[in-house]
Amino acid sequence: MFLARIEGQLVASAKTDHLVGRTMVLCRPLNDAGINHEEADEQVVAVDLIGAPQGSTVIVSTGSGARQAAGVEGSVDAAVVGLVDYLVIDGDRVESEG
Amino acid sequence: MFLARIEGQLVASAKTDHLVGRTMVLCRPLNDAGINHEEADEQVVAVDLIGAPQGSTVIVSTGSGARQAAGVEGSVDAAVVGLVDYLVIDGDRVESEG
Amino acid sequence: MFLARIEGQLVASAKTDHLVGRTMVLCRPLNDAGINHEEADEQVVAVDLIGAPQGSTVIVSTGSGARQAAGVEGSVDAAVVGLVDYLVIDGDRVESEG
Amino acid sequence: MFLARIEGQLVASAKTDHLVGRTMVLCRPLNDAGINHEEADEQVVAVDLIGAPQGSTVIVSTGSGARQAAGVEGSVDAAVVGLVDYLVIDGDRVESEG
Amino acid sequence: MFLARIEGQLVASAKTDHLVGRTMVLCRPLNDAGINHEEADEQVVAVDLIGAPQGSTVIVSTGSGARQAAGVEGSVDAAVVGLVDYLVIDGDRVESEG
Repeated sequence: MFLARIEGQLVASAKTDHLVGRTMVLCRPLNDAGINHEEADEQVVAVDLIGAPQGSTVIVSTGSGARQAAGVEGSVDAAVVGLVDYLVIDGDRVESEG
Repeated sequence: MFLARIEGQLVASAKTDHLVGRTMVLCRPLNDAGINHEEADEQVVAVDLIGAPQGSTVIVSTGSGARQAAGVEGSVDAAVVGLVDYLVIDGDRVESEG
Repeated sequence: MFLARIEGQLVASAKTDHLVGRTMVLCRPLNDAGINHEEADEQVVAVDLIGAPQGSTVIVSTGSGARQAAGVEGSVDAAVVGLVDYLVIDGDRVESEG
Repeated sequence: MFLARIEGQLVASAKTDHLVGRTMVLCRPLNDAGINHEEADEQVVAVDLIGAPQGSTVIVSTGSGARQAAGVEGSVDAAVVGLVDYLVIDGDRVESEG
Repeated sequence: MFLARIEGQLVASAKTDHLVGRTMVLCRPLNDAGINHEEADEQVVAVDLIGAPQGSTVIVSTGSGARQAAGVEGSVDAAVVGLVDYLVIDGDRVESEG
């Protein structure tokens, strides 16, 4: 799993049945959350399972665990599985960078 | 999953049975879709499940979920599972970069 | 699997059922453990299965093996599966860099 | 899946049962096949399922799909699953770079 | 799978049951084996299934195939599955770089 910021949503009318009715979000992995704000170069497309708002910091799961969490038999390989409230770094509470 | 542009197709006469009769496309991941146009260095070969046209922006799934979506028991580890109509970035509609 | 240092914890009240009651830690992969101290750019979020203290050097497993070790049917794709006591490099005992 | 060039073969007498009797090839991923010739920095070891000649351009599958294509219960995580005849890039036939 | 050099071993008294009694080795992937000697920046922790000596060049498998080869139900996502005797590059026998 990794931390990411929700950058936006995707609209795709032609897609496999597994993705119909799903909210697909564009996520930007955070490389250095809670320490320095640093974003990854690449983006990840994930199915949102928790109703994460735009700009929020989330936990993204990948692979077969993401597909199982989404309850589908294929297509999904990434899912938003948690909305971060805050981090605890070296004992200090740090707001997530959303 | 990730966004990619369809760069071309592959023709391969010698292949495993799982790939026979499949359209195999050469995909270029997009690192910064909807914001800055930036393409990844590497290419990915995927089985096309939606009939994506050359140059279009698509959603590519990887791993066992891609194989299951393709309905085969092996060989496939990436599949085109959606054709992007547009993105919504920070509340604004942004055309996908195809 | 890879070596990592525990940088902190995550608090996330909205999450999938698979993550409820789990300790989620923020891990920093170590690229050159036992030789030169060098940390990876990216962070990984893992479920802690062994009670690893902050700052310790741990073994992180990924993918379906991590999920199975956590005993859940989805969401988890990384888990802390071992706490490193020390390394043996070229026959010499080297303290892990925690 | 990705495109790669067959650079050589491996001889390994001590190995798991899953690899006994298998041709193991050293593959170099091609980052920019059909456009600019550019090779990846890393190499991949794959089980050859199609009898690919030295220097040829092939399709490599990874993960559980590769293992299933090889028909084994473990050890294999990459397999050569197709031999590329040619590419079609922007409607033009392009020879694969073998 | 990829080629790697065995750099050392790990001692970890606190670990999941799947790792108890296992030899865990620290591996350095080789990016350019048989051509130029070049090592990867990152290290991988793997369960040794073949008794590979320190410094030797080995084949490392990852993911569910590694776990199955190790015969466990979780935690393991990388395993040493072969000991390289030599490579054949462009028809020439090349000693592995151990």
